[in-house]
Amino acid sequence: MSNKDLPMQTSWEEAFDTLLWGADGLMPVTTVQVDTGTVLMSAWVSRAALRKTLEINKAVYWSRSRQELWVKGETSGNVQHLCEVRVDCDGDALLYIVDAAGPTCHTGRQSCFSWKLSPDTGLVCDRKIEEQPSQDHHA
Amino acid sequence: MSNKDLPMQTSWEEAFDTLLWGADGLMPVTTVQVDTGTVLMSAWVSRAALRKTLEINKAVYWSRSRQELWVKGETSGNVQHLCEVRVDCDGDALLYIVDAAGPTCHTGRQSCFSWKLSPDTGLVCDRKIEEQPSQDHHA
Repeated sequence: MSNKDLPMQTSWEEAFDTLLWGADGLMPVTTVQVDTGTVLMSAWVSRAALRKTLEINKAVYWSRSRQELWVKGETSGNVQHLCEVRVDCDGDALLYIVDAAGPTCHTGRQSCFSWKLSPDTGLVCDRKIEEQPSQDHHA
Repeated sequence: MSNKDLPMQTSWEEAFDTLLWGADGLMPVTTVQVDTGTVLMSAWVSRAALRKTLEINKAVYWSRSRQELWVKGETSGNVQHLCEVRVDCDGDALLYIVDAAGPTCHTGRQSCFSWKLSPDTGLVCDRKIEEQPSQDHHA
């Protein structure tokens, strides 16, 4: 895309066609907690996942491991109530701004990004577990 | 990956091998402004891009459109000084926490996520331009 702005669309369905879906029909999405700005997770959405997210006002993803729609927290109860969906300037990445009902990570941590990578320490986990690990894992 | 934690690695090179790179050798990365938590952009990194990021302490990406390493801000001057690299629980997504020297978006906006998508309004831009659009665009 050039320096021109992403074309605005007044219809939700038209907007879907403006977005640049990958060859696999998916797009990466990053999810942020609304009040703290904490980045909770990154995952993938299909058109159907994005549509359902906007319909039920909860974050829905496409689980690549299970090849199915995945309503986050359906099993664990830690749903992510949708506040806003945002789109980047190329129309090829999404941002979900949510209010999460509990820890997002299946390890029981608030954020999936609980590991730090640096030349000094290598890869280390520096965030605490907030509740028992769940079975609600759909990478 | 199971409910087990991502294996910790004390060596940076070992950690690279722990990460789950895509079939194309890339991994999605989301970049956040350190003091405000603003999500600035989403992009892609290769092993070489991640290595260079850690070496020069500036955010480096893989430009899929140009098929080359892309030191963000090399042209525009709006570099992203690296504060931290974080890894998610599956080892297949990254987070760059940075201090950006200027607007990240090639449209001159602070964040690339300047468009909002909702059933009520469709796709609309609701963020202002902070400086003249740049040529520094490497989607």
